[in-house]
Parts: sequence; C-alpha cells; structure tokens
Amino acid sequence: MGDRCTMVISGSQLMSYISDFTNICWFMEPEFEEAVRRLHCVVGNAVVDDRYIVVGTGSTQLYQAALYALTSPGGPEPVSVVSAAPYYSSYPDETDYLCSRLYKWAGDAYEFDKNGTGPYIEVVNSPNNPDGTLREAVVKNRGDEGKLIHDLAYYWPQYTPIIRPADHDIMNFTFSKSTGHAGSRIGWAVVKDKEIARRMSKFIEMSTLGVSKDSQQRAAKVMGVLCDGYQNCKSANKSDDLFFEHTRQIMAERWERLRQIVERNQVFCLPKYPKQYCLFSGELIEPYPGFAWLEAKEGEEIDSQKVLRGSIKVQGRTGRRFGVAEKYVRISLLSNEEVFKEFLERLSTIKSMSSNGH
Amino acid sequence: MGDRCTMVISGSQLMSYISDFTNICWFMEPEFEEAVRRLHCVVGNAVVDDRYIVVGTGSTQLYQAALYALTSPGGPEPVSVVSAAPYYSSYPDETDYLCSRLYKWAGDAYEFDKNGTGPYIEVVNSPNNPDGTLREAVVKNRGDEGKLIHDLAYYWPQYTPIIRPADHDIMNFTFSKSTGHAGSRIGWAVVKDKEIARRMSKFIEMSTLGVSKDSQQRAAKVMGVLCDGYQNCKSANKSDDLFFEHTRQIMAERWERLRQIVERNQVFCLPKYPKQYCLFSGELIEPYPGFAWLEAKEGEEIDSQKVLRGSIKVQGRTGRRFGVAEKYVRISLLSNEEVFKEFLERLSTIKSMSSNGH
Repeated sequence: MGDRCTMVISGSQLMSYISDFTNICWFMEPEFEEAVRRLHCVVGNAVVDDRYIVVGTGSTQLYQAALYALTSPGGPEPVSVVSAAPYYSSYPDETDYLCSRLYKWAGDAYEFDKNGTGPYIEVVNSPNNPDGTLREAVVKNRGDEGKLIHDLAYYWPQYTPIIRPADHDIMNFTFSKSTGHAGSRIGWAVVKDKEIARRMSKFIEMSTLGVSKDSQQRAAKVMGVLCDGYQNCKSANKSDDLFFEHTRQIMAERWERLRQIVERNQVFCLPKYPKQYCLFSGELIEPYPGFAWLEAKEGEEIDSQKVLRGSIKVQGRTGRRFGVAEKYVRISLLSNEEVFKEFLERLSTIKSMSSNGH
Repeated sequence: MGDRCTMVISGSQLMSYISDFTNICWFMEPEFEEAVRRLHCVVGNAVVDDRYIVVGTGSTQLYQAALYALTSPGGPEPVSVVSAAPYYSSYPDETDYLCSRLYKWAGDAYEFDKNGTGPYIEVVNSPNNPDGTLREAVVKNRGDEGKLIHDLAYYWPQYTPIIRPADHDIMNFTFSKSTGHAGSRIGWAVVKDKEIARRMSKFIEMSTLGVSKDSQQRAAKVMGVLCDGYQNCKSANKSDDLFFEHTRQIMAERWERLRQIVERNQVFCLPKYPKQYCLFSGELIEPYPGFAWLEAKEGEEIDSQKVLRGSIKVQGRTGRRFGVAEKYVRISLLSNEEVFKEFLERLSTIKSMSSNGH
C-alpha cells in the first residue's frame, strides 16, 4: 500500500511508561485499542463490544499472561495445560521453561479428556498451527475445573473462512499473523472478564513493564490504513486497496501450486479442508493455512523432517514437536515468493521418501 | 535535538522475526548492537570489547533473563535472589510472580551474608534505586555458589560520576534511563560469557519471541544522534549538542532547588553524596540521582508516604517496598518541569511530619 503505512516518530514522542492510567491496561496506547476494535468490526472475526483489550509483546507473551491470570499461588498443585495434538510446538516450552508451581504442560487434550484429572487449562488454537483445522475445545464436562484460552492468531480472511464472530473468554490475536508484522512483537487479547484482563495486564507489567509504544503506534497506523481501504472501497470501488482479498489471492495461488506438486509426486498427502461460508467475503471459500502439514504416505516410520533436510535441503519442523508422529512435517508457506518458488522446485524433485536421504 | 532523532519506518520494513541468525541474539538488529557499543565507547561507563550484547524488552525482561540464565532445572531447591536493602522495589515481585522452582526472592543481601546458606544470586544496583549510592556486592566469600547481576540502569553521566568502565559478568542497561525513552521498552545486557548470553537470548525467545524491531531501530537512531553530538563537538565546539552535559545540568539544578527546600523546612534529610572523579567529564563531580530518597527526621514510626499523600497530595513510594522502614519515601525527580516545580512548591509547605496528615 505504498507509503500510506509509513510511520514517523519524533525524538520526543512516546517516552513515558504510561499511556492511560484510567485503562486497566494502562500501558496500552488509546490509538492502538481503537484500531484493534475497528479492525475486528471490519473483519467480523471476533466480538469486541463490552470486551476488554489487553496489548502484549506478541501473542507469545499473552499466552503466558493468560496462564498467569487463570491460576493462583494458593492452588494445591500446578494446573494442567493441554491442547489437542497436533498442537503448536511452542506451547510446551512456553509453559514449562520457568518451572512454575502455578501450571505445567500436560500434553494432548484428547488424552487428558480420557485420563486426566484436576484443574486444567485447554488452549484452543483455531485455525490450528500446524494443521490449519478450525477447532473447538475437546475436553468435555469442563465444570468449574476447566478454563479455556483461544489462540486465534490465524483467524483472518487470508487463511480461513470467517465462520462466525468468535466469542470466547480469552481470545489472543497477533499483528504478526494478521498483517505479517512479526518484527514489531505486538499482540492483543480480547477478554470478557474484567478481573482476568486486570491480571493479564499485571503479568505484562511484571514481565516487561509494558509494551513498545513505537510498535503499538505503528500497528495502529497499519491497521488504520487497512480499514480505510475497505471504507474507500465501498465509496469508490478501488479493489486494489483491499488487503485481505490481495493476501488471500496470494495464499490461494500458493496452495494451488503446492497441491499440484504434492499430488503429482505421490510422496506426501496434505489435509483436505471443507469449503465453508465466509461471513467476511459472503462466499463459500476454502481455507488456505499458513503452513503445509505434510504426511508421508509410505510408512509410519518415515522421519519426514530428516528426509526433507537430507534429500532436498528444506528445513521443516517434525511432527514430534507437535505431539504426533515423525511422518508429519510442517513447512511455512509465508516465506517470500523467491523462497517459496525454490521450495516448490525442490519438492517436485522428490520421488519417494524411503529412497531419499538415507 | 530537534528533528535529528525523527524515525521513519515504511509499511514493509522490519517485518521479520529474524534480525541476524549468525548472532547468538538472533532477534537483535545489527544497527542496535552497533549503536550500543558506540555509546558505551563515547561514555566510557562499561567495557564492551569481547563482550556479548543481548537486547531485551526493557531491563525488566533482562533481569528475568539473567535469573533464568544463572539457574537450571536440575537444582535441588530454588536459588536465593538477594539485593542490599534498600533494594529496587520491583525485584521481589519480578522474581516471585511465577512461583518458579528455579529461584526465589530472599530479601536483603546483608542479612543473607550473615545468615544465608546455599546457592544465591546477588543483584547489585549501582547507582542504587532508590537511594542513589554507588554500590558493590555485599555478600562475601562467594565461592562457586554466588552469582552476580549488575543492574546499571542509572550508570550514566547525568546521574553520577563515571568512576570506571564497569566490567562485570552481566551488566544490564536501559534506554529508559540513558535517554529517557521508557515507552520503547528497550534494554540491553553486556555479558562476558557466551553460554550466559545464549541462555538469556533463549529466555527472551520463549518469553516474547524477540524484541520490537521498531523500537530497536529507534533506539539506534537516538543513540547515534547522541554520539554524533560528541563527535561534532570535538570538531566544531557546539556544546548544545552535548546530551549528557545538558541533562546533567537539569539534574544539578533540580537537586539544588530540592536541597534548599529540604534544608529549610527541617522535616526530612536527604543522603549526602561524596564528589568523585568522573572519567567522562574529567572533573570531580557530585551524583544527582533520579530519585529523592527522603528520610523523616522526627521519629522512627512516621509513615512518610502516608504523610506526604495526606498533607500535600504527593505520591511517593514507601521505604517498606524497598525493604526498609516507612520513615523513608522515594520521590521521582524525572518528571517534567511543571510537575517538578509543583512538587517543590508543595514540599515547601510542610512544616512538621507529626502534625501533618494525622
């Protein structure tokens, strides 16, 4: 969108710790909060009216803020944290690296549903990283003991049909996946309960004493330009201003090229995603996830990550990291065009997994 | 410095998680590292040659990164974390909020030196927040069981004589206190040991998956302009370009006005700081700390915070929060001129602590 997103900050701006002491999240720039609410209204992917917004240093920090907000030091034992396998590979480390007595990683939510007991938190990642599926909580009979965190990082129209405005207790989003600005480390939570929002803000205060105001302002600017595009479009029919149509088109083309090669060489399968009605576009559309979740066809024992690295020098992430078998491997589809093209060219040279790289 | 510090970021810049995969701290912008090294060379307040730099989301995050780097999950019990009272009031909370099994807050380092046992980490805050003193480690006979973190947030020429280039294992600094840009949440550690730098970087990866690149670039720009001032000065004698001389002058004036009032009304005492030779200015100079550490003269039981709030509506932080008696109170001297002037005017109306606010 050219220079419309260009950000200018003078030397004396944004110097204080404080953005607004009347807000529970006192380190959040009012312009950022306003932009987040406007963006969700334009996209229709989350209910924001009568909800609290909490800004974080990426959704990574907000995940940990939510764990802190949902537990308390008085508890008899660490609360179990679970997510349905294949689950996002960073959840285990982000939960356990500080050896907290408040919570501990307890693995696959399906297993916990069968055999687990006691208080727990289920993380629902939808669309799911790594496999792109739209998900709901899997642990049944939650009662008072179960709490939910919804990680909706990829619930944006370039990746998935927007099937309804999400409306959950804690919903985490990130600038990184909405517009691609990972380097700014900006995320936000949409939170129903005031006390939970307060505790998440308290966590961020103790963890980093706030969130970069430079990046909050930049995110507000970029989101504002994005939303302006949709408002201008309605008045002037300038469809090149439409961010999600543009990015969705790129994702659709990448998936088409990827599926052709995967079907031709018969070494992997990819998940099939049902078309669903998208409230944002008003059409039946197909999901185009940010990752290819490849499954080796040839046998249970194939280490797909190892074979890809050995045979075509492509770095994926093994299924083991996501709590499933190593015949699965996750490949990012969000690289630049040159890297993506190179990936497809190398992938097309693979003829068989068992004869490669061993 | 007018618009020389103005930062411009286009919509498509700084989007990646990654800054430099060949650096241990792979999310650190090379321009930021270069600016940090240059700044320390200009000021002479820390040894940076053959040291690793780790960027953090403020020194708050780097303090926690250092605790993580200096402990390990295999340990039999939490490592004791201590600092000499009066200690920075956020250390206890930042150490204990996640109830880690790796480390726990154990209070005053003088007490630990007398009665403590087992592995420990001493945080040396110099100049010290709240009382402005230059400090060294106080726990003796460290042996293999003791580790040090040096929090040098205020070790800059506007606050203190630079008595030597600091040369410790882990030294934390912050953009917030060096130039006043607290809102950017940028800090850095200067680290001797490669493995410690690696573990601190790993902590930041798990905590926030990196540090805002917008703010890193802005910090690099501001530090660069500051350093340019000193280089231009040498060639053209433009002393209005000299950041530390300008800010030191403001601090000196504030302290002079503050001491006059405190001496006149005889209700509080302020610490006396010895003049020391400053390597940066080449003169014998007095410290001008960022906080007034006020002690009520009239009796041990006075709650100075309460009296100040009740009688003149000034919000300080009680000595209790710093591990000492409530006759002490800390007041920030880093507000804007209007607020500072108002503070002095109110302070000058106090005649006696025991007759006020009760």
